[in-house]
Amino acid sequence: MRLRNLTGIPEVAAGTDIAALIADAACAQGVVPGDVLAIAHKIVSKAEGRVVRLADVVPGEAARRLSQETGKRPETCELILAESRRIVRRRRGTLICETHHGFVCANAAIDLSNTPDGTAVLLPRDPDASARRIQAAVSAAVGGRVGVIITDTHGRAFRRGIVNIAVGVAGMEPIVDHRGSTDREGRILTATEQALADELAAASGVLMPKDGGTPVVVISGVATEPGPGGADRLVRAAEHDLFRG
Amino acid sequence: MRLRNLTGIPEVAAGTDIAALIADAACAQGVVPGDVLAIAHKIVSKAEGRVVRLADVVPGEAARRLSQETGKRPETCELILAESRRIVRRRRGTLICETHHGFVCANAAIDLSNTPDGTAVLLPRDPDASARRIQAAVSAAVGGRVGVIITDTHGRAFRRGIVNIAVGVAGMEPIVDHRGSTDREGRILTATEQALADELAAASGVLMPKDGGTPVVVISGVATEPGPGGADRLVRAAEHDLFRG
Repeated sequence: MRLRNLTGIPEVAAGTDIAALIADAACAQGVVPGDVLAIAHKIVSKAEGRVVRLADVVPGEAARRLSQETGKRPETCELILAESRRIVRRRRGTLICETHHGFVCANAAIDLSNTPDGTAVLLPRDPDASARRIQAAVSAAVGGRVGVIITDTHGRAFRRGIVNIAVGVAGMEPIVDHRGSTDREGRILTATEQALADELAAASGVLMPKDGGTPVVVISGVATEPGPGGADRLVRAAEHDLFRG
Repeated sequence: MRLRNLTGIPEVAAGTDIAALIADAACAQGVVPGDVLAIAHKIVSKAEGRVVRLADVVPGEAARRLSQETGKRPETCELILAESRRIVRRRRGTLICETHHGFVCANAAIDLSNTPDGTAVLLPRDPDASARRIQAAVSAAVGGRVGVIITDTHGRAFRRGIVNIAVGVAGMEPIVDHRGSTDREGRILTATEQALADELAAASGVLMPKDGGTPVVVISGVATEPGPGGADRLVRAAEHDLFRG
């Protein structure tokens, strides 16, 4: 398996046709069918206009209260509340939220770093749909199916440090189901669903330094199953989750 | 970044000098200083004699009670309790435990699949020490520092599917600390500790099919900081953890 950066991706602005941009670069840089592209969500969010000037945000009453409790700006709190289904945990300045997509992460995945000053970058409204659009464009350009994973860096329960995870997936099965296959002793494996899209997202994170300069990683030499994708399939339903509370 | 399997690793038994075995294979297969070796814990555990015949386990009173509550074998419950600091969550047959190492995972990381019939494989007693032994042997053999990550596949809170994570690290910093560095707009990044060892472990998981046949992955072309390692540094302390409860 080999990972490399797709180079020459310019800064994008709202309205940039990011699918065409990535498809052109992929074609020019030897992406072939079977490859998987991991794409930092931030360029997708920017292209989709999911950048908010904090000065334009009008905090409501709930945001003002949350601001007093957390020490965060009221405008930031307003965005966090708007992006959240609910707040899962809070302690001092830390807010762990469940986004409307179902992701459980700090500050509803709102990013205030490496964005134009005074702005916040939100997740795409529907990262799976974004992934599908890019996947269709790149697959058409290179003449065969590629996988596309849109990534974000999230913290984890129990473990320190952030890792890159999949927030949107298209063109491949995000989970490899080993249930029913056998181990080397010939016994049936149980409870073995491998989160392949998250493992590939994590791998791509190594090549996405946090300064944001290399937002697209090409992964070659990995076998993926064709499928519609869907990072929503990586979200554990609340009723099966022992920690969402 | 490139990942490949180290081939020709035979089945190991208790007492196998796994450090010498991997060092020889690494030398023969072109591992060079700067590479990182990801090693499935199971071969390390087997070499260290951390394989238990369930028939030899005498369940105590607590294990018998847990067996009745969960439907698991009393012998398995005895092992789970022995490997655990405490049980963090339980629901029907699911036990999420905190191991003596501090890892929060199902069944205290005890593995009953892909092991000789009627046996269980436990984590190494001190996976960081195991990693250090292997790291020293491989580094001496190839003439310079390599990184070593011992891996296991764990489930996660909030997300479906298992991913490979680091349970032992040597010869490299497991966490890259971006705090104090600047983003592309020149602002200081905060709260950005990247769990590099976990991202590399996840990447290696793609090349470790669950049948256990390819337990060592060589990762080339990744910049790591020299350091003593320690997967214990990837464990979030209970007092900073919002979900351990």
